[in-house]
Amino acid sequence: MDERLKKQMAFALKLDEEKNIFRQTHLSHHGRNENDAEHAWHMAIMAYVLQEYSNEDIDIGRTMLMCLIHDVVEIEAGDTYAYDEEGKKTQKEREAKAAKDIFGMLPEDQGKKLYDLFYEFEDAKTPESKFAHAMDNLQPLMLNNSNNGGDWKEHGVSKSQVYGRQNRTKEGSEVLFDYTDQLIKQNVKKGNLKDE
Amino acid sequence: MDERLKKQMAFALKLDEEKNIFRQTHLSHHGRNENDAEHAWHMAIMAYVLQEYSNEDIDIGRTMLMCLIHDVVEIEAGDTYAYDEEGKKTQKEREAKAAKDIFGMLPEDQGKKLYDLFYEFEDAKTPESKFAHAMDNLQPLMLNNSNNGGDWKEHGVSKSQVYGRQNRTKEGSEVLFDYTDQLIKQNVKKGNLKDE
Repeated sequence: MDERLKKQMAFALKLDEEKNIFRQTHLSHHGRNENDAEHAWHMAIMAYVLQEYSNEDIDIGRTMLMCLIHDVVEIEAGDTYAYDEEGKKTQKEREAKAAKDIFGMLPEDQGKKLYDLFYEFEDAKTPESKFAHAMDNLQPLMLNNSNNGGDWKEHGVSKSQVYGRQNRTKEGSEVLFDYTDQLIKQNVKKGNLKDE
Repeated sequence: MDERLKKQMAFALKLDEEKNIFRQTHLSHHGRNENDAEHAWHMAIMAYVLQEYSNEDIDIGRTMLMCLIHDVVEIEAGDTYAYDEEGKKTQKEREAKAAKDIFGMLPEDQGKKLYDLFYEFEDAKTPESKFAHAMDNLQPLMLNNSNNGGDWKEHGVSKSQVYGRQNRTKEGSEVLFDYTDQLIKQNVKKGNLKDE
């Protein structure tokens, strides 16, 4: 088989392992934990459906692709919960190695493109990456809200922690930040989030 | 909340249920059954990585979106296994109702766009839909091959059944059809597929 196609298929098969990386978030209707592949799929469609709320014009194809690949590194580096302060200390280093290893399985031109797209997401400076981060925050918040804040209650998460994360939502979309702001306030009122 | 955003968020939350629709295909490394959301995510990235093999020029953003939404109807209509001849008799009707219900949750303009995109996939006449079908066939074949044909053996699938399906791969990509052709022949030789 052609060397190029062989590398591409090896990468494609490697991707499959992302379905075994489970997150803290639970599916709606008080379901099981969600995995990274499902989360990425959900984010990408939400990016399409909600694109009109982006603060800046975005290339929706690039934004969807960014959503789809933003957690590929976790195949090697594992999932780090948004409010796990210890895990977050080594997260960058673990993910940098994984990005080299995993995108490095592809032919060089493609590997570089996806590696750069992954770091564009991480750096969160372009319109596409800011909107993708808004999706990365909104998607689990939507699920968690649908489950009456179960994940927040389990981890004793506070309002200020959630706002810390949702500030990135604001950079991608003022409209969607206002929406999450309403949800956060409702969840504080219900006692699902600590009021601190 | 704004009525438009309310509809979009209701659709986004509904999508979550696709993660509970399980397929016959098993994950690599002899894993559990795969669900539709994972399958769609996998197909969309594969479409991006393998786009150079499309027989015709494609808009990759549209192709990825088509991959992402092509199984949304199964939230209501359930999964129909590719070689389930009984289930396939009622599949079109069940899925038509589901497409109206689910895409109908969105604001009219968006619902129509996604409904049309879903039927563009179903009709498999445009370059994007032909390539998306190639991914829909290649992705489970790749997983099944990695598991030494476990799903085929379980269902007693024959070579001619697999070729029947892979003919659509040929319409999307001659190169990828040649690749699947090699895999099928290897699996016949190993006794994973009935030679008939």
